[in-house]
Amino acid sequence: MAESLHSLFCPTSIAVIGASTKEHSIGNVIVKNLVQYGFKGSVYPVNKKAEAIHGLKAYLSILDVPGKVDLVHIVVPPIVVPQEVENCGKKGVKFIIINSAGFKEMGKKGAALEADFLSRAKKYNIRIFGPNCQGIINSNPNIKAYCNFTFTYFKPGNISVIAQSGGVGQIIIQALHDKNIGIGLYASNGNTCDISIPEIIRYYGNDKNTKVIILCVESISDIKKFISVAGEVASKKPILAISSGITEKGASASRSHTGKLAGGKTTEIIFEKTGILSFPNLEDLCNASIAFASQPISKGNRIGVLTNTGGPAIVAIDELVKSGLKIPPLTNSIKKNIAGRLLTASSINNPLDILATADASHFKIALEAMVKEPKIDSIYITLVTPIFIDCVKVAEVIANVSKENKKPIVCNLITDNKAWAETANVLSKGGVPCFNFPETAAKILASLVRYNDFKKRKKGQIKTFADINKNTVKSIFEKAKTQKREILTATEVFEILTAYKIPITKWSTAKTIEEAITKSEKIGFPIAIKAISKKIIHKSDVGGVVLNLKNGLAVKSALREMQNNIAQPDLEFMIQKYHSNGKELIIGVKAEKGVGHLIMFGMGGIIVEVLKDVVFKLLPITNIDAKDMLAKIKTTALLDEYRGKPGVDKEKIVEIIQRISQLVTDFPAIKELDINPVLAFSDKAIVVDARIIYSSK
Amino acid sequence: MAESLHSLFCPTSIAVIGASTKEHSIGNVIVKNLVQYGFKGSVYPVNKKAEAIHGLKAYLSILDVPGKVDLVHIVVPPIVVPQEVENCGKKGVKFIIINSAGFKEMGKKGAALEADFLSRAKKYNIRIFGPNCQGIINSNPNIKAYCNFTFTYFKPGNISVIAQSGGVGQIIIQALHDKNIGIGLYASNGNTCDISIPEIIRYYGNDKNTKVIILCVESISDIKKFISVAGEVASKKPILAISSGITEKGASASRSHTGKLAGGKTTEIIFEKTGILSFPNLEDLCNASIAFASQPISKGNRIGVLTNTGGPAIVAIDELVKSGLKIPPLTNSIKKNIAGRLLTASSINNPLDILATADASHFKIALEAMVKEPKIDSIYITLVTPIFIDCVKVAEVIANVSKENKKPIVCNLITDNKAWAETANVLSKGGVPCFNFPETAAKILASLVRYNDFKKRKKGQIKTFADINKNTVKSIFEKAKTQKREILTATEVFEILTAYKIPITKWSTAKTIEEAITKSEKIGFPIAIKAISKKIIHKSDVGGVVLNLKNGLAVKSALREMQNNIAQPDLEFMIQKYHSNGKELIIGVKAEKGVGHLIMFGMGGIIVEVLKDVVFKLLPITNIDAKDMLAKIKTTALLDEYRGKPGVDKEKIVEIIQRISQLVTDFPAIKELDINPVLAFSDKAIVVDARIIYSSK
Repeated sequence: MAESLHSLFCPTSIAVIGASTKEHSIGNVIVKNLVQYGFKGSVYPVNKKAEAIHGLKAYLSILDVPGKVDLVHIVVPPIVVPQEVENCGKKGVKFIIINSAGFKEMGKKGAALEADFLSRAKKYNIRIFGPNCQGIINSNPNIKAYCNFTFTYFKPGNISVIAQSGGVGQIIIQALHDKNIGIGLYASNGNTCDISIPEIIRYYGNDKNTKVIILCVESISDIKKFISVAGEVASKKPILAISSGITEKGASASRSHTGKLAGGKTTEIIFEKTGILSFPNLEDLCNASIAFASQPISKGNRIGVLTNTGGPAIVAIDELVKSGLKIPPLTNSIKKNIAGRLLTASSINNPLDILATADASHFKIALEAMVKEPKIDSIYITLVTPIFIDCVKVAEVIANVSKENKKPIVCNLITDNKAWAETANVLSKGGVPCFNFPETAAKILASLVRYNDFKKRKKGQIKTFADINKNTVKSIFEKAKTQKREILTATEVFEILTAYKIPITKWSTAKTIEEAITKSEKIGFPIAIKAISKKIIHKSDVGGVVLNLKNGLAVKSALREMQNNIAQPDLEFMIQKYHSNGKELIIGVKAEKGVGHLIMFGMGGIIVEVLKDVVFKLLPITNIDAKDMLAKIKTTALLDEYRGKPGVDKEKIVEIIQRISQLVTDFPAIKELDINPVLAFSDKAIVVDARIIYSSK
Repeated sequence: MAESLHSLFCPTSIAVIGASTKEHSIGNVIVKNLVQYGFKGSVYPVNKKAEAIHGLKAYLSILDVPGKVDLVHIVVPPIVVPQEVENCGKKGVKFIIINSAGFKEMGKKGAALEADFLSRAKKYNIRIFGPNCQGIINSNPNIKAYCNFTFTYFKPGNISVIAQSGGVGQIIIQALHDKNIGIGLYASNGNTCDISIPEIIRYYGNDKNTKVIILCVESISDIKKFISVAGEVASKKPILAISSGITEKGASASRSHTGKLAGGKTTEIIFEKTGILSFPNLEDLCNASIAFASQPISKGNRIGVLTNTGGPAIVAIDELVKSGLKIPPLTNSIKKNIAGRLLTASSINNPLDILATADASHFKIALEAMVKEPKIDSIYITLVTPIFIDCVKVAEVIANVSKENKKPIVCNLITDNKAWAETANVLSKGGVPCFNFPETAAKILASLVRYNDFKKRKKGQIKTFADINKNTVKSIFEKAKTQKREILTATEVFEILTAYKIPITKWSTAKTIEEAITKSEKIGFPIAIKAISKKIIHKSDVGGVVLNLKNGLAVKSALREMQNNIAQPDLEFMIQKYHSNGKELIIGVKAEKGVGHLIMFGMGGIIVEVLKDVVFKLLPITNIDAKDMLAKIKTTALLDEYRGKPGVDKEKIVEIIQRISQLVTDFPAIKELDINPVLAFSDKAIVVDARIIYSSK
C-alpha cells in the first residue's frame, strides 16, 4: 500500500488545473515553484484562456494534455472540482492534490461536493491528497517536485515532514531551512479525505533517504492503524512529534474518575504506546530532528562534558541533570593519560574544562579521551570561539571525531556565525549539530537518549487468563442490555469481577436490617456497609457508608441512621468485610471514541482527588506495561516499604490490571470501569468498591 | 554610590596596560575593539617596546600618559598587577578592569596577589572590576566604549546585561545581536573582587537608557544588599534572570526535613522575594527581554488571539493556557461590529481567524476590535506571509497599532525573513516583537503578565507580636550554649514555642511509668507518648511512639513495651494529649550560609516524605507571604473543605508561621527548626512535635 504513493512523491509529469497568469495567485505560484525549484519532469498548466504560463504551453483541459500525467493539482472553485476529477479519471491520472477549500469544513453543501469527487475518484482508482491543503515537496535532485504554493526552497536532506496544518508545516520547514538543514519529503494534507497519515508515515518509513520523521497531526481518524503503522516505522526510524495541536474535547460530562482524569491526555498516551518521541514545542522538535539526522543514537544516559569556557557548561549541566542524565567522573587512567598534555590550569574532570586558550591539539586529546572513556555514552561540547585560537582547526578536530565516532556529539557553539562562518561550516559538514544556547543542546542530547530508551524497552506479553468465566459476564451484560441499563448494579459488578477472578472483599447484600445483621455475622466482623440505591452517586456524601462495625448492635444502629439519611424506597445494603490499613489504589478504564480503551492506575482516596497522580495506557496491555504503570506514578514510593511498614504486593496489583485488560478486551462495550478503591496489602490486593458503565447500544 | 560607577561605564579616556602588537592577543584586541567600535574618548596603549598599536601612540608606562585617565585595562601577568595598580594610583586613575586571570581562583599565591592589589587600590580610591573578566561595553553613541576582548559589536538599545560568566554573557549579547536587537550596557565582571553585582544593578537602575536588565550571576556575596538593591530596581524596571548557574552544594548532611528540602532552591527563593523574573533557560530569557524592551506591561492575563492561519494559533493557545492565561470570548457587540467587515469564512471569535486571504484592511478591523475589547489585556498575533497578500501593508497596520496601543502585542511571524525582509523590518521598527515559533511568542507574552503580577503584588506587613516572652527563650538558648549543646531537648523546644505563644498540644514529661500515668490522667485521655533519649533520631522507627492510649492500663502496658524496645538509660517519656483527625502540616526554618533564614511550609506526614510538596520563603515574612505559602503548595486543596468535611483554620496556621518568623528573627542563631507535625483543625492548629538546632558558636 505504501509503495502506491510513489507517483505522488516521485511524479514524472504534473498538470495544474486552474493554473493562472495572475501573479501571486495560487494557480500561478504552483507552476512557478515547479519551474523554479527545478522539477525534472513535465509540467502542464491547464487554463481555458492563456496560451502559456511561466513559459509553459497551457492546455484547455486535462484531456488535451499530451502523454500521461502522474499527478494533478486542482486549484479551481469547489463547485467544478468533481467534474475535473472525472476528467482526470478519463485521462488516467493516479494522484490529485486538491488545494481548493470549500468542502466538508464548510458544511453540508461542501460535504456533498466532497462525496461527489471522492466517488468519482474511487471509480477511476485515483487517490486524493487534501483537499484544503498545501501539497507535497520532494527535494530529491532527481525529482525536485515543489507541489505547493509556499515559499521555502529547502535543500535535500534526510529529515522528512508530515504536517496536517500547512501553517505548522511551514514553521518547521522554514526553521530548518533558516539553519541550512536539508529536508527530504514534505507533505501537508489538510482535510485528509482519502490519503491518510498512516499511509504517508509508511511511505516515509520505506523511503531510503529519510532518516528522521517529523509528525504534526491535529486529528487521527483510524487510531489502530496509526499505532500499528507508526509503531512499526518508529522502531526503525525516530518519529518526532508535538503533543499539542490534537485538540480534544476533554473530560466533558464523564461519570467516572477515570473519564474525568483522561481528558486531554490521549495524544500523549498514543505516542507513548507507539514509540513516538513527543516534544513540548516545535522549536525543541526541530532542533532534535537536526541531531537525529546526523548523529548516532545514544547507548545510555552518561554524558561527558567538554568545554573551553566555564559558565555555559554549568548552565548545560543543570539542564542535563534536570533531564535525568548523568555526568560521571572520568576514569582515573584516562585522567592520568591527559593531565600532562592539556594546559596547566585545565580542570581534568567531568566537566572537562580545557580553557579558552586551548587549541586544536588540546581539543583532540580531550575528545579522544571522551571517546575512549567507557563510562561515557554521549559527548556534550561547549565551544566558544576565542579570537586568539584557530577555531577552524578546532572544528576540524571535532568534525573528524564526529564522523568516526559511535557516541553522539552535540555542541553549544558560542560565536558570531558571520565572522566564524568557516568554523560553523566545518562543524555543519561534519554533521555536528550546533546550537546557540546551552540548554537547547542539552535538551536535544537528552532526546537522543530518550529514543534509545524507547528502542530498548521490552514489550512484554499480553497474558490471557484461562481461569475466567466469560459466559457469566456475557449473560450479565446481555441482561443489562435488554433492560436498557447502562449502569450496572453493585451486585452485578461484583459478580463480573468474581467471574474474572479479580479478588474482591467478602460481600453480601441485604434488604432489611435483620438480614444485614445475619449476613454480617456470616462474613465476620468488622463489617463495612454501603447504601445501594439508584438515586445515589456519591454514597459517602449522603451518609451512605459506615465502616468498621464491630458487632450486630453497631450494625443495627448504623443502618437505622442510614435509613433516616437516605429515605429511598429502593435502598438496600452492601455488606462487606472491613479492612483497615490497606493502601487505597484506583484502577479504571474508559472507552475513548475512535481510540479504544484507556486504562488508568493511580493512588486512590484523597490523593487521586487532589493530585490526580495517575498513569494511563492504551488497552490491551502487557505485563511490562502494567508494571510500568505502578512505577510511573509520582507517588510510587508510597507502594514501597516505608519506615518499617512493609510495601504492597505489586504482583497482585499487576495481575488485577491484566485481568481488567482481558475483561475489557473481551467486552469492548464497557464504556467506563472504576475500581476505587483496591486495597493493597503486603500479601494481597482486594477490590472494595467498583462501578461499570456499559454501552447498551 | 551608583553614580560613582559613572567613569567605568562612561569613560572619556582609557589606557590599556599590556596593549600588544601581537595580532589576536587580548592586549591587541582590546585596543582594536576600542578603535573599531568608535570610542569617543582617548585610547592610550601602554607597552614597553612598541611605538604604536593600531595607529595609536604607545607609552612606556601609565605614568607617561598625558592628561587624565578614567579607566585602565590591565592585561599583564598577575605577578606585576599590584605594581601596575600602584602606578595607576599615582596617575589618579578611577577605575581598573583587570582582565588577567591567576588570582584567588588559583589558590594561596594568587589570593595574596589579589589582596596586594586590592589594598593598593583602596589606598588610592581606585575601584576594581574583575579580575579574570571580560570588561564592560557601552553602546551609547556619545561613548562607544567596547572595553572587552570579545567580538559582538551590538547596536545601541535599551536592554542592559550583567553576566558574571563571560561565556554566558557572550551567548546573550550574540543572540540579541543576531536578531538585530540593540543593547545598552554590558558588564561581565568574573571574580568580582571589588565592584559588586548590586552596584552594577543600581547603576543600570538609574541609567535612563536602560529599560530592561538581564542578570546572570553565579554567586552573590552579600544577599541582603542584593535583595535590597535589586528589589528596589525591579520595582521600576524588569530584571530578567535564569535560576540555574548559581550552583549550590545542596542539602548536604542536614539533620532536618527543612534542611534536606531546601537544597538547591535558594536562588529561586531569592529571586521571588526580590521580584526578579526568572526563566528556565537563556533563550526564553533573551526572547522575553526583546518584548520587555518594546512593549508595555500587560494589565492582566486575558489574551486576544488574532491569526491568519489556524494550526499555529492552536499550538499557541495550548501554550498560553498552559501558562495560566485566559482566552475569553469576544464581547457580542464587538463581534457584531466586525462580522460583516471581514472575509466570509472568518471565524469571528477568540481566536479570531481572519484567513490567509485577509489583507491589511481586514487586519486593521480585527486589531482595532482587539484594542477596544474590554475583556482583553494583551494581543497575540499569528501572521503567516502569504504570497498573494501585500504583507508590508499588513505589517504597517500592526506596527501602527503597536505604537499607540497600551496593550502589549507579540507576534508569531511565519515567513522567510529574506524574501519578506521589509515586512519583518516594518514590524521591528514598530517595536512588535516577532518570534518564529508560536510557543515562544506565547511564553514571552506570559512573562509580560508575570511581571505585572510581581508589580501588583501587595507586600503586606511584618507583624510583631507583643505577647511573647523573649527572656525565657534567651535564657534557654544561653543555657544550651554554655553546655555546648546544639540540639535542644523536647522540653526546651516546647518551652520556647510556648514563650512565643505558638499553640502546642497539652504536654508533660515523666521519668517513670507511674509518673506517666499520673500525668496522663491530669492531661486527660486519649494520650500519646513519645520516647525522649539523646540516642534516638527517628522515634517511630524504634517503637518510640504510641498513640491514642485511652486509660492508665494502656499507658502502663505501652510504656513497658517501649522500655524493652529502647533500653537507654536516659529514656524519659513525653506525654501529650492525643488528637485524631487533624491535618498534618510541617513548618520549618533553615539558616542558609550567606543568605539568612529560609522558612518552609508544606503538607506533613507521608506527603512531605514522598511528594516534597513544600514552599519556601526568605525570612522575615509578612502576613501576605505567609498566606501565599499556604496557597502555593500543590496540595493546597487538602486544606479546604472536602465532601462535607470542613477545611482547616488557615488564619491560625498563618499566625504560627508569623510567630516562627519573629522567633527566628529575634534569635538568628537558630540553625534549623522543624515543626512536624502541626495538626490543623477547622478551629485550631496545634504543634505536636518540634525540634530546634541552635548554633553554639
